[in-house]
Amino acid sequence: MNSRLEPVSNGGLIRIRLDISYDGTDYFGWARQPAGLKTIQGELEAALISITGLPEVKTIVGGRTDAGVHARGQVCHLDLPAEFVLEQISRLALRLNSQLPQDIRIGAVKITPANFDARFAALARRYAYRIADRDIDPLTRNWVLAHEYPLDVDAMNQASAALIGLHDFAAFCKPKPVGSTIRNLAEISWQRIDNLVVGHFKADAFCHSMVRSLVGSLIPVGDGRKDIDWPGRSLRAKQRVFDIPVAPATGLVLEEIYYPAESEYEARIAQTQALRSADEVD
Amino acid sequence: MNSRLEPVSNGGLIRIRLDISYDGTDYFGWARQPAGLKTIQGELEAALISITGLPEVKTIVGGRTDAGVHARGQVCHLDLPAEFVLEQISRLALRLNSQLPQDIRIGAVKITPANFDARFAALARRYAYRIADRDIDPLTRNWVLAHEYPLDVDAMNQASAALIGLHDFAAFCKPKPVGSTIRNLAEISWQRIDNLVVGHFKADAFCHSMVRSLVGSLIPVGDGRKDIDWPGRSLRAKQRVFDIPVAPATGLVLEEIYYPAESEYEARIAQTQALRSADEVD
Repeated sequence: MNSRLEPVSNGGLIRIRLDISYDGTDYFGWARQPAGLKTIQGELEAALISITGLPEVKTIVGGRTDAGVHARGQVCHLDLPAEFVLEQISRLALRLNSQLPQDIRIGAVKITPANFDARFAALARRYAYRIADRDIDPLTRNWVLAHEYPLDVDAMNQASAALIGLHDFAAFCKPKPVGSTIRNLAEISWQRIDNLVVGHFKADAFCHSMVRSLVGSLIPVGDGRKDIDWPGRSLRAKQRVFDIPVAPATGLVLEEIYYPAESEYEARIAQTQALRSADEVD
Repeated sequence: MNSRLEPVSNGGLIRIRLDISYDGTDYFGWARQPAGLKTIQGELEAALISITGLPEVKTIVGGRTDAGVHARGQVCHLDLPAEFVLEQISRLALRLNSQLPQDIRIGAVKITPANFDARFAALARRYAYRIADRDIDPLTRNWVLAHEYPLDVDAMNQASAALIGLHDFAAFCKPKPVGSTIRNLAEISWQRIDNLVVGHFKADAFCHSMVRSLVGSLIPVGDGRKDIDWPGRSLRAKQRVFDIPVAPATGLVLEEIYYPAESEYEARIAQTQALRSADEVD
């Protein structure tokens, strides 16, 4: 843009990190789609283009959410001209929020080192899945799944225990031509909070539809249609199990993405890229 | 309806109580309006007519909420033919919910004594008002007011203390040709829960727009635009104070209506009717 500027890094560009929340109900997921399909990335990049005056803006996201899935802790990065960033950084969140629809909110905008990578530097993702099995609250209907039958949280936790750890989750993943289905599932647990049953899922990464398939295998355990061993038996099949339903997107929220200290970015990026192919969904 | 039925009470009719929750965002309040204006009562009575086959159904509500106001603990009563009620009572909530839009939910349907009155038997109403003064969560945008400036909860509690008790709340009420503006405000308190500031309001009854005017007088105390004595000074004016803003409906939820034991219905109804004229808003 402006050659009189100090070369900050990255050829006159500065990398910024956006922390984003959204109600995914009315969107075809994060990833930009052909014209006519509303996406979070599409709305965000349009707002960024409008504010910067650039012909094009490219965001890289930490957790590519599917259609209808929500986020409270989404993270993306992008590079913008240094001059613009240095002048605008303090009001960028406010300006973006005034451009974006009410169901997408920017929580924070921060300058990051040029080697920060929202996708490959991530250590882990944490999702929550919320189900109301009684006293349905219409105020939370967009992000809490209503379930007609009472759920036994103890049974769901027992069944979940068999899934924790480093496994080939092929049974719970939509098949893809390339990429591994081996993941390290650090946490699955369920807790009852009043009328809600809340599931917590944390892993280095999840393959496509994995959290919703895990939920889809655990709800029938909770309401007694399947026995406690069923999800573990399905895992051991090591291939797609077609009677596992994919739970609706409604209940799913990407709550948090974890990153290492700045000094660890390079090492983490190298490790992630060695483990997983670049065209995989996180 | 059917003269072969045992006369249950009330001339072949049985009184039932409905517990109702709704997201009021898309409605012109509880009370039925001229055709074309969507209301909670209108939707509910249409669903009741569809299920019962009656030409008309009349509901009486405990807390007549304004346009855009929500409820988790709304209560209404109505009389239906005994034969229908005795046959259908166990599935009435399910049938109503399958007829109603997703933003209105019936939590419970119960048979009550014929002298239960959702409006006049109520002992008290409790409302909550929720404000996010940081980390705006788009998932709760329908029922949490976003406020740009940080709120001082201690200051709001100090200002609220002057409003508690039996007072003439004319300063906070839309004027009406008849009816008293004297109310017994049993509770106003504010608490911080993470990014939210939550106000609790409990009174025997509230006059029209009273909770939102109380909130409208307390938000400017919270963000420092008005001093702590301002709401109390306004109260002492004993007439409408026009610089008190009416806070938006977004943040307001009718959380609960309190009723006495069955044996106390008659006494409570007589007491309420003596205190307040029948054409007043609760």
